[in-house]
This record gives sequence, C-alpha cells and structure tokens, in this order.
Amino acid sequence: MSRINRQIVLAARPQGAPKDSDFRLAETEIPALADGQFLVETNYISVDPYMRGRMTEAKSYVPPIPLGGVIEGGAVGTVVESKHAAYKEGEVFLGNWGWQGYAVLDGRGIEKVDPDLAPISTALGVLGMPGMTAYFGLLDVGQPKQGETVFVSGAAGAVGSLVGQIAKIKGCRVAGSAGSDEKVDYLLNEAGFDAAFNYRDADLGAKLDEACPQGIDVYFDNVGGPLTDAVFTRINIKARIVVCGQIDQYNNAGASKGPRLLWHLIVKRARAEGFLVFEFAQRYAEGRQQIAQWLRESKISYRETVVDGIENAPRAFMGLFEGENTGKMLVRVKEA
Amino acid sequence: MSRINRQIVLAARPQGAPKDSDFRLAETEIPALADGQFLVETNYISVDPYMRGRMTEAKSYVPPIPLGGVIEGGAVGTVVESKHAAYKEGEVFLGNWGWQGYAVLDGRGIEKVDPDLAPISTALGVLGMPGMTAYFGLLDVGQPKQGETVFVSGAAGAVGSLVGQIAKIKGCRVAGSAGSDEKVDYLLNEAGFDAAFNYRDADLGAKLDEACPQGIDVYFDNVGGPLTDAVFTRINIKARIVVCGQIDQYNNAGASKGPRLLWHLIVKRARAEGFLVFEFAQRYAEGRQQIAQWLRESKISYRETVVDGIENAPRAFMGLFEGENTGKMLVRVKEA
Repeated sequence: MSRINRQIVLAARPQGAPKDSDFRLAETEIPALADGQFLVETNYISVDPYMRGRMTEAKSYVPPIPLGGVIEGGAVGTVVESKHAAYKEGEVFLGNWGWQGYAVLDGRGIEKVDPDLAPISTALGVLGMPGMTAYFGLLDVGQPKQGETVFVSGAAGAVGSLVGQIAKIKGCRVAGSAGSDEKVDYLLNEAGFDAAFNYRDADLGAKLDEACPQGIDVYFDNVGGPLTDAVFTRINIKARIVVCGQIDQYNNAGASKGPRLLWHLIVKRARAEGFLVFEFAQRYAEGRQQIAQWLRESKISYRETVVDGIENAPRAFMGLFEGENTGKMLVRVKEA
Repeated sequence: MSRINRQIVLAARPQGAPKDSDFRLAETEIPALADGQFLVETNYISVDPYMRGRMTEAKSYVPPIPLGGVIEGGAVGTVVESKHAAYKEGEVFLGNWGWQGYAVLDGRGIEKVDPDLAPISTALGVLGMPGMTAYFGLLDVGQPKQGETVFVSGAAGAVGSLVGQIAKIKGCRVAGSAGSDEKVDYLLNEAGFDAAFNYRDADLGAKLDEACPQGIDVYFDNVGGPLTDAVFTRINIKARIVVCGQIDQYNNAGASKGPRLLWHLIVKRARAEGFLVFEFAQRYAEGRQQIAQWLRESKISYRETVVDGIENAPRAFMGLFEGENTGKMLVRVKEA
C-alpha cells in the first residue's frame, strides 16, 4: 500500500505575527505498519493560540517545534488500518499528532472518542482542552462565588465563551469583551452574557465601568495588553485574576511594555495566578462529565469555526490572532 | 496645666518624591482631660513606606490624610496623666496617633506594650507591624518549603531582614538585594543570608543568577520596578510572588512602565498575590509570640535606625526612599 501523508511543517521561526512563509506543505509516504501499530486518518486538527509559543526557540514549558518538524497539536482521527488487536478500524481517537493527514500510532498518548456522545470535533473543543481550560481555570483557579462579577477577555473564543457560561451557571454576573460587533451579539444573545463590548472601541475604561458597575471579582484573562491594564484598576478587594492566555502578547516576544500592575494587587489584596490545563489532567473525566451534562441540559452551547483542508491550517492558525473565530477554530481534514 | 503638643502636619500633597515643604511643624495646646481620657507622651514614632500612599488624594485602602492633618501612623508612648481608671501613669501603649508629641486617648485602638519583654521600640518593628508583615506575608502568602530558594527585595529593611531570617529558620536558601554595600555586608554577616547583592550595581540579571542558581521559588517583593522585572524571568514552576510593597513605585503615582509580566505566570504556573498585614489581625498574638521566642533563642536579630526629634520625622520618612535605614526606621521623640 502506498499512501501520501500531507503534513504542515515549520519552515521558519515566525518573527512577530506568523505568516504563510513560516509554514510549508510536505508530502511523505506512509510507511507500512509494523505489528502493534495502526494508522489513523485525521478528521479534525486543532489550531490554538498556545502553539505560537511552540514555534519560537525560547525556553517554555515544552520544547520548541524543530525547524522542518510537523506542527504539533491536538487532532481527532479514525483508524483506517490496524496491526494492533486493541485498536480497530472505524474507531475514533484524540491525540497530539498535529497537522498531518495521517499518523502511525501505537496507542500511547491517545484517548478514545465516543461519536455517540457528541460530534467528534467537540473532543478538540467544548469536551477537550479548551473545555477543560475553561472549567478548571474558572472554578479551581478563579473560585467564583454567587453574586460576584466575572469578566472574561477573549470571551467569544473557545475558552472564553465557556468560561462565561459556566460562571452564569454558578450565579455570577458575567461580562466579556470580544473583537467584533458580531461576536458581541453572540455573547449577549446566545451565550447569555449580562454585558459585552467590542474591545476595539475607543475607551476601554468606560466600557468596563459600564459592563461591570460593581467592579470585577474574577478576571479570566485570555488576552493581556491594554485591556488587562484597564481591568487591573477596576478589580475588587480579594479579586482573583486567572491568567489563562495573553494572545495580545504572543507575537511580541516580550517586547511589549505597559503600566506596572503589581501595586494594584497590594491595594486590593488580590491574586494573579497562571495555570496550564495539564495540571488538571487527573481530573479531566470530572470536567468532561460535567460539561457533557450541561450540554445535554442545554445549559451551555458552543460554536465552532471550521476551515476546510489541511493546506489551510496555517491560515486558520493566523486567523486566531486576527480574531477570525467565534468559539473553537478547527480545520476539517476529512469528514468522519 | 498648659502643655504644647508639637505635631507634624501635611502641608501639601507630595508630587513625586516627598520634600520638606510638604510637611509643617504645628504647635497646639493640649486640652484638659475629660473623665475617661488619658494623655500619652510619645516615645517613638514609626515612619513607613506605606504612608506615602496616604499622602496622596488617590483612592486606596484607607482614606487619605487631609491637608493640615497630623500624619497618621504607629507610635509608642507612655501615660503621663490619666482620668481613666484602667490606664495608669507610666504604662506604655502602642497606637496609631501618628507624628505628634502627645495624644489624648480613651483606650480605643491601642495595645499595651510590655517593657520587660523587649525594648518598647520593638512594638513598632520586629514585634509590631513590620514583624507581622514579614511573618504572615512569608509564611501564609509565600508558603516557603524546606530547600526552596526565597529571594527578598528591600532585604535590609524592617520587613525584608526578618523575612530572610524566618525563611532561613524554615530551611530555605535565602538571597536578597539592598541599596548599599554596607547593607549587603549586614545581610551576609549578621542576618545570615546565603547571598546578597547591591541592586544599584549594573547587571541585575547576572546578580540574580549568581545569587539564586536554582531559580526563585518565593519572591518577597518590597520594591517593584526593574528588579522585579528581572525576578519574573527567573521564577521556578509554581513560584509564589508575595507582593508586599513597591517602594520603587510609590513616588511615581502609576506613571512607571515596564515589561508586561503576566505571561511568566502562565509559563511557570505561578502566582502573584498582594496582601495587607491587617488581614491577619486576628492572628497577631501567634506571630508576636513566635517572633519573641526566636528572639529569645537568638535565632533572629533586628536592627533599628533611630532619628532623634519629632521635627526630624519628615527627614526620616524621606530617608526611607533613599534607603537610609537598615532595619526599622524610627523617630525617637522622648526617651522612655
């Protein structure tokens, strides 16, 4: 059998915002399977802001992607050939094989996906890493209490839209910011936010004051930058700032300056805490079960922005930084 | 009886660094005591960096000192006349009557000081607010574990020098920065720090790397500014940043800019937390008892920098921002 694997590899380390020429489409032949191996055909791949950090040489929490290497990241695929007794053709798995049409696997580092539970794409979104990020980041790190105000930046994204909905379930007032009027409409009319605004509008301080008249008790920050600066001056006593992402900063490589913020933490006896979702890996089952239940009860909804064709993965990824997605940004490689 | 009370009042709201003309010496006559009142003569007054914030009109955790008002702050004094059965001549009390030679009191908001336990000045230092700040800030907010590296900025100050010594008792490697070579000598040779450097020396990053070769697990920050920026890039996984003071910023009124730091909290899953010592008021007895015991066991030592004469209180206060103190800065108004 000779099959071609189309892969997106890192052609150059992005300087500032990633661009087309930082990526290259490569074609390789899929090797014959050894005993104990199986082949998955990719259905969906995930593009996520955190991947930007992996493309830089700088030391971070995982090693960088090597030049010429396949872009790593979450993917969902279907077994199409197997020489492993435990993995059968037609079964669907979630793994981290990244931006390629096929992967030869041996069963390590993957998880079975149940297509009857929810559409398989949700394993990369509301029931996957973004869902777990929202669930544990808000509830464990942010610890919202009934009646408190939760403000979410990047609120129309995969994580933010869930954070807001979970905070509503917990009895909070929920406000958020997003990058277009359409997204603001989505937040107000579909995701159930109490207030929302377009952060591209002029006066962030006035918008925040209007959206959060009682100040901010929990700030779930996906964005960073000037919006976060404005939030810091509006936090309440004992506020919790959940530092989940800083997408405003990812293409700046630390060059960005802003007002010094730590003083506000003293005055308000407040806490800013960063986290990575894998810290909660032992509790994913709990998070997934709870979110699935809320989905069944129609207490939360989700959106996906789907781009077709693996060759368009770089464009989808770049689109994240332009705010082109509402909800989870996905690349559909092959309809399941 | 006619006695004159010499008071230091706020003549103008400081712009930037406080200067002589922001203060004025006022003389008022001490009124006759009513029943239930008593008169204390001040022995020591405290000057502390936090007072700078009180002199500004900006909203903070307590209302600002009014123009023409006596500068508020901790003081220790001796009862010299009493019309209150429970307060007797010769007894010593700690209160918040501030920068004045006498105060008419009724017993509210004061605490008895035991001159046999330790010199009464320590009620403003090692056994007082700075001591409690070090004890609860380090142990409760910072949660140092044996073998971890604790770095303290402003390490030769009233709070910092105690933080370092308590961290040593808890089995940590302790490093600190201060503003003169004499203070560095004090930290290394008297306060028992494992490493210390003068932050006025050129390369903060290199100094930190040398002082903390294993990175920083707990950062007790009294200073803020460029030193804190350099520390943020050297924190370890799950580091705790105790935001106690930002003396580098107090005269800037929020105008100072620096690199955006929150990204480091994500990468290191770290936490920055501000606190105010009065949050721990219910537990002061515990802290005071423990510190007194360590003093008796010679496990900790303390220094005081004493300026004589209430008329010199403004100079002593201004000296804090010039780093003129080692240990607690005090003004001696009247020898006990």
